[in-house]
Amino acid sequence: MSKEITSRKDDYAQWYNDIVLKAGLADYSAVKGCMVIKPLGYALWENMRDVLDRMFKETGHQNAYFPLFIPKSFMSKEAAHVDGFAKECAVVTHYRLKNDPNGGGVIVDPEAKLEEELIVRPTSETIIWNTYKDWIQSYRDLPLLINQWANVVRWEMRTRLFLRTTEFLWQEGHTAHATRDEAIEETRKMLEVYATFAEQYMAVPVVRGVKSANERFAGAEDTYCIEALMQDGKALQAGTSHFLGQNFAKAFDVTFRDKENNLDHVWATSWGVSTRLIGALIMSHSDDKGLVLPPKLAPMQVVIVPIFSKDAAAQAKINDTAAALMKTLRANGVSVKYDNDDTTRPGWKFAEYEMKGVPVRIALGARDLENNVAEVARRDTGEKASVSLDGLGEHVIGLLSEIQDNLYNRALTFRTENTRKADSWDEFVKILDEQAGFVSAHWDGTGETEEKIKELTKATIRCIPLNNEQEAGACILTGKPSAQRVLFARAY
Amino acid sequence: MSKEITSRKDDYAQWYNDIVLKAGLADYSAVKGCMVIKPLGYALWENMRDVLDRMFKETGHQNAYFPLFIPKSFMSKEAAHVDGFAKECAVVTHYRLKNDPNGGGVIVDPEAKLEEELIVRPTSETIIWNTYKDWIQSYRDLPLLINQWANVVRWEMRTRLFLRTTEFLWQEGHTAHATRDEAIEETRKMLEVYATFAEQYMAVPVVRGVKSANERFAGAEDTYCIEALMQDGKALQAGTSHFLGQNFAKAFDVTFRDKENNLDHVWATSWGVSTRLIGALIMSHSDDKGLVLPPKLAPMQVVIVPIFSKDAAAQAKINDTAAALMKTLRANGVSVKYDNDDTTRPGWKFAEYEMKGVPVRIALGARDLENNVAEVARRDTGEKASVSLDGLGEHVIGLLSEIQDNLYNRALTFRTENTRKADSWDEFVKILDEQAGFVSAHWDGTGETEEKIKELTKATIRCIPLNNEQEAGACILTGKPSAQRVLFARAY
Ligand SMILES: [Zn+2]
Ligand SMILES: [Zn+2]
Repeated sequence: MSKEITSRKDDYAQWYNDIVLKAGLADYSAVKGCMVIKPLGYALWENMRDVLDRMFKETGHQNAYFPLFIPKSFMSKEAAHVDGFAKECAVVTHYRLKNDPNGGGVIVDPEAKLEEELIVRPTSETIIWNTYKDWIQSYRDLPLLINQWANVVRWEMRTRLFLRTTEFLWQEGHTAHATRDEAIEETRKMLEVYATFAEQYMAVPVVRGVKSANERFAGAEDTYCIEALMQDGKALQAGTSHFLGQNFAKAFDVTFRDKENNLDHVWATSWGVSTRLIGALIMSHSDDKGLVLPPKLAPMQVVIVPIFSKDAAAQAKINDTAAALMKTLRANGVSVKYDNDDTTRPGWKFAEYEMKGVPVRIALGARDLENNVAEVARRDTGEKASVSLDGLGEHVIGLLSEIQDNLYNRALTFRTENTRKADSWDEFVKILDEQAGFVSAHWDGTGETEEKIKELTKATIRCIPLNNEQEAGACILTGKPSAQRVLFARAY
Repeated sequence: MSKEITSRKDDYAQWYNDIVLKAGLADYSAVKGCMVIKPLGYALWENMRDVLDRMFKETGHQNAYFPLFIPKSFMSKEAAHVDGFAKECAVVTHYRLKNDPNGGGVIVDPEAKLEEELIVRPTSETIIWNTYKDWIQSYRDLPLLINQWANVVRWEMRTRLFLRTTEFLWQEGHTAHATRDEAIEETRKMLEVYATFAEQYMAVPVVRGVKSANERFAGAEDTYCIEALMQDGKALQAGTSHFLGQNFAKAFDVTFRDKENNLDHVWATSWGVSTRLIGALIMSHSDDKGLVLPPKLAPMQVVIVPIFSKDAAAQAKINDTAAALMKTLRANGVSVKYDNDDTTRPGWKFAEYEMKGVPVRIALGARDLENNVAEVARRDTGEKASVSLDGLGEHVIGLLSEIQDNLYNRALTFRTENTRKADSWDEFVKILDEQAGFVSAHWDGTGETEEKIKELTKATIRCIPLNNEQEAGACILTGKPSAQRVLFARAY
């Protein structure tokens, strides 16, 4: 397999696919729209999952697991939800195969037809709220703070590895509260957990905001989101947190008695992030040499490559130096590999680890060691430096931290430079066509205008930023009065 | 909800269900045969998963993720596999719902019929070996050591929480090797990983063995298994490891070039354990007061219950003692909760934590503290002891280890006492009917005899133990010559 990848400039979409395939993150599968997540991609997902899981638990949530299948009738119980989700779904209609009497392998047994079809979950609000009905009777059962790690299926006609696949992995939080205020507080708290994760671990700066009515989750009263900007100037929704009001509680008749023995419906939230985050990670930091990973999430943070020496004493010194360095790094929780495979050359290894996004590479050669130094290369900038063996471990630990910060700052600078104000329709279109990025512009607040703008430019309202500055203006399309700018972009 | 549970003596099956439901491990769901895994059950599964995952990684395996769906035609590619698995499956036939034109909610869109039906994976050999075809060309690509954590679906008519559910969670390892010997070595290595996990973490002694041809996995040349004995004398298969020969490599045409450039088919193994292990854990150790958990897997290892005092100084001393103890325990990696909820009484809490299987309970009362002691109760034996506050933390840590050992030894004694030799048909039937347990007996080695014994007694050959003693004898049913005893039991 050729390890060359298309440059971003030549074909951004192909560059993305090349990275996913050639870094070994994922592969296409025999099932249309479904991918195989390869070991490096899955290790990355495990690291993301472990950090998020810890953050969820620290904020009082517990994990549970609900069925993969949802009875078809559940999908129609919440009026808005059915329009949003009960459409492109995988439908299970039968529960048995049998040998083809005509000898053609196996066929579906027509006698094993389900009375009611089952939907492979596209999201689990319905099956979970049907369960919560049994779990919630009193204010003492609230709040109920549950998260699920699971696979979900949404039948997609046009798929892209990680960004949009028929099956994907995600987590979905589903919480129940006694009051509206508490549910809204939970919705915002989880948005902040996502934003913190994106910025501090993924090194991806995000805009925290609220969706317009058109872009709301089907069944939500408000959808909060974090939006990131990719290197091609397109936005990517990286996580959502929904305030569901009493909609699902009413649809599934989930009530509770408060301290005064009054009966009321429960208030709900749901929130989720998925393997799509891996797509966001790739497109935020990677370059034309391959994947670039933030050290805090990289499955392999440091690789040590020996420049083999034919002199036994010199080679022993290389091995000993590597062993001592690994010991120091591992004692500090750094994941490090010594790649002493002698069937491939150092240059091949360098390219391979660049492709796979290993943040720091250390080359150990006999001559360098004689001078008491090692060559340390950082993946983010490509810089190489001769570093003294004395304190090399501490230097590398500091460098990992520096790379993490640099990736974040670089992405933040990019976003700042690519967030522009537009005050007329022409300006708006010109920015979208010539520069892309976020466009901050006035909007008259109606769904019709939003829809029209989308039709004309393919740009959507990514969000109304939280704590948005209020400023009187005129809608870029209709000229009608507007009280604030909102953030537009073309998006993934 | 009443917290009383049926006793094992009165109704063993009901006792089991009571524990699962009332300890809060799992719940029934709206989807026939599927369960909801509740927070305590899922936390237990997470602990099991984390230990196993570490053991898999230490033996060189990596995780990956393959599609939920399998094209129907894949199921018929391996001749034996199709008979074993392509039967009771969930079949996806359509990919879209639409609004019922007659206003009855949503219906399956007849226009959205799949060209080829998709099966929800009952196990993933076929989709994985279809992928391995692309990943393996040379001996340098081998061994390929991959594991997947996933949900699978097997349509079951009669289900029981954890023990047999339509959907369940599991891990499935799928490895590819250059030689037959290496694949067999892997099969046995992973069996030993499972046995070590069962014995050292679950505190469940297991018999390591090989299945008879009748009980082999569909598509395997040999199925290795670990078998445990439950308190009602029935056996439970706790894990299996399969040597698949070249069957799947041939079915999916997976070949490799060896060092001499010869082309050969790849050798395969697969191995798995599932949430069924939770059923085995429950039935090995629990009692008529509820769940009993081995300390190494218990989500909460220690609970501290204050006996509230109206004297502020005395209550402050209780709180301080709890805080100091928690600090010591947590520093030693012990998970501990201080339950100072003042809306429930200590006696209610004691019963609740007994039900939930918390290994050690510490009661802190003012009078005890004056005497510089605390009351420490162990869940396995129910014993209570007055323990000096000096060194209480160390005492508790030692006690957790003692409980772990005691659970294992108790289960081992039970199994030893319930493993009996039968040398005639009458003796065999009498043991099964009156005492249950494992029965070690001679068998003529034929599938027909095995089948006949199963029809007559409902007992199956659980396994031919590894390193089985060779001993000439006569088959208990046919009297034909036999070279060794095998292990029979009625089983879950
Ligand atoms: Zn109602
Ligand atoms: Zn072939």
